[in-house]
Amino acid sequence: MVAAICLSCKNESSTKPETALAGKVWEVNALPSWADTPANRIKSWVQLVTDTSSPDFIPVADRIAVFDNDGTLWPEQPVPNQAAFAFSNLRALAPKHPEWQKDPVLNGILKGDLDPMEKAGAKGLLKVLNASHTGQTEEAFNTAVSNWIDTAKDAKFNRLYKEVIYQPMVELLDYLRANGFKTFIVSGGGADFMRVWTEEAYGIAPYEVIGSYGQAKYEVVDGKPVITKIPGEFYNDDKAGKPVAIHRFIGKVPVFCGGNSDGDQAMMQYTSGSKYKSMCMILHHTDSSREYAYDVKTVSGHLETALAEAKEKNWMVVDMKKDFKKIFDFK
Amino acid sequence: MVAAICLSCKNESSTKPETALAGKVWEVNALPSWADTPANRIKSWVQLVTDTSSPDFIPVADRIAVFDNDGTLWPEQPVPNQAAFAFSNLRALAPKHPEWQKDPVLNGILKGDLDPMEKAGAKGLLKVLNASHTGQTEEAFNTAVSNWIDTAKDAKFNRLYKEVIYQPMVELLDYLRANGFKTFIVSGGGADFMRVWTEEAYGIAPYEVIGSYGQAKYEVVDGKPVITKIPGEFYNDDKAGKPVAIHRFIGKVPVFCGGNSDGDQAMMQYTSGSKYKSMCMILHHTDSSREYAYDVKTVSGHLETALAEAKEKNWMVVDMKKDFKKIFDFK
Repeated sequence: MVAAICLSCKNESSTKPETALAGKVWEVNALPSWADTPANRIKSWVQLVTDTSSPDFIPVADRIAVFDNDGTLWPEQPVPNQAAFAFSNLRALAPKHPEWQKDPVLNGILKGDLDPMEKAGAKGLLKVLNASHTGQTEEAFNTAVSNWIDTAKDAKFNRLYKEVIYQPMVELLDYLRANGFKTFIVSGGGADFMRVWTEEAYGIAPYEVIGSYGQAKYEVVDGKPVITKIPGEFYNDDKAGKPVAIHRFIGKVPVFCGGNSDGDQAMMQYTSGSKYKSMCMILHHTDSSREYAYDVKTVSGHLETALAEAKEKNWMVVDMKKDFKKIFDFK
Repeated sequence: MVAAICLSCKNESSTKPETALAGKVWEVNALPSWADTPANRIKSWVQLVTDTSSPDFIPVADRIAVFDNDGTLWPEQPVPNQAAFAFSNLRALAPKHPEWQKDPVLNGILKGDLDPMEKAGAKGLLKVLNASHTGQTEEAFNTAVSNWIDTAKDAKFNRLYKEVIYQPMVELLDYLRANGFKTFIVSGGGADFMRVWTEEAYGIAPYEVIGSYGQAKYEVVDGKPVITKIPGEFYNDDKAGKPVAIHRFIGKVPVFCGGNSDGDQAMMQYTSGSKYKSMCMILHHTDSSREYAYDVKTVSGHLETALAEAKEKNWMVVDMKKDFKKIFDFK
């Protein structure tokens, strides 16, 4: 029944169920892994903005929903998962790069010692990402990510990384799409890294994924067109970079924004500035037994000023321990 | 009937009509403004790649079609339409910029003399675009484009610019979408300029429009989030910049590419390099009475090396005089 309703939702004129019964069908089974209070808050907003008779109605073309990825759709502890991919790829590429042994950060990774990278802070991680990503062709990089995502496991949960995704958020993505929203990822993670697997994991196509990105060049090599990642300016899709990237890639102000850190604060403000009645949501990681508990004391996903602004602006703060009945599909 | 078929086409399992009759319905009324030979060539390719039993079948997720805009979806003579918008906007902004009077190119435009700009070549046009676009907020710029596109007329055809679009190409966009393709614009024109009106004109949403773009900044001014166009590096979405932008914005190699100039050659090569059986198409402007006739002798839309490569690679060359029964909806 839900599928049938979803199809009609794409047609603006039929977003509002015609009968009370249809209205009930429309909501059946939506957001089952959410506690009632946050689920009802989301549903109330969706019903309000998809009701053609409401003054807060949002036309389908303007139903743009954006989501952070690390810490919002999947975990980002103890380090963002892309770092685990980068370490793995660095080891695979190392035989061709003897010069890496002279670099304390890179040599540390190759020997399994993360200390030098961690001491170097954000610059250390960026160095590892650059070394493991730059110089590769589009095809080689996609294959490397694809092989990794199909085999690599999260150590804490002993599951493939692509399975360790927040089930309530997957339900939310589905629910929004069923109501005519377009869902986009707007993440500090690398766009090229995410695009390989987001369709399978979240139903989000490569062209709906916005992330950090570096430079690339196009050339024809032996008659074959090739895109290669090259050194150069890096676009950091974080903080103020997120609304600018939304402007650059989507060209519309979102009406829904989900995030979990101060890095998402600017895109929440931008969403709040929409001419429509928008909704913003912050995941607060509070569950140390089922997942992780962190906010101000973490390198990845620092949450402090965004939480303060959430109170001022009535953004929904999701207490993962209390508000998620289930965190993962397997748990 | 066609609409009903279109809906089902989005579902991969039903892209192939189940019966011979359905197969005929599927094709009825498709591409009516095209001559039979090019129409049949397009239809044959679409049928081949959407037939699940064909070795050339392309899954829906990989049906990416890219189109240039100026000269491919609408005219680009005597100058690209965005220049007409820029002239109009320059005049509107001039009172706040007395310094423009000292610049021969900008002062020329304000006085209605295009000679200094034309003598300065591509740099002259870029200067006009920069002066008329930079420093504006996202909202102000969108409003300026919106007002212009709703009122400004093409001098040759005495119609709104947004009506002077190639009817056969609109039919092709519809036909491809009805068969499960995602249609994107990949143009040298400004993304922000196009996004305001492409949905109405072509059914292409803002987030399906890739174009040239400059820098922007995000800030909160008087409690209101604002994106402003600022000076800085300019991404030129032309020639080798097109496949790089496709990589950056779409993240998949296209399987269909439509263009009309040497600026589109690199994205045609890139499309030809797809692992699937792809199709490339070049519009050759050959109709001086119904539109314009040009190829090697023009500033906008120079066509020479791409035509040579089309012969080598069997890209479809559309002779607009012969192959378009109708060029515009009104003509």
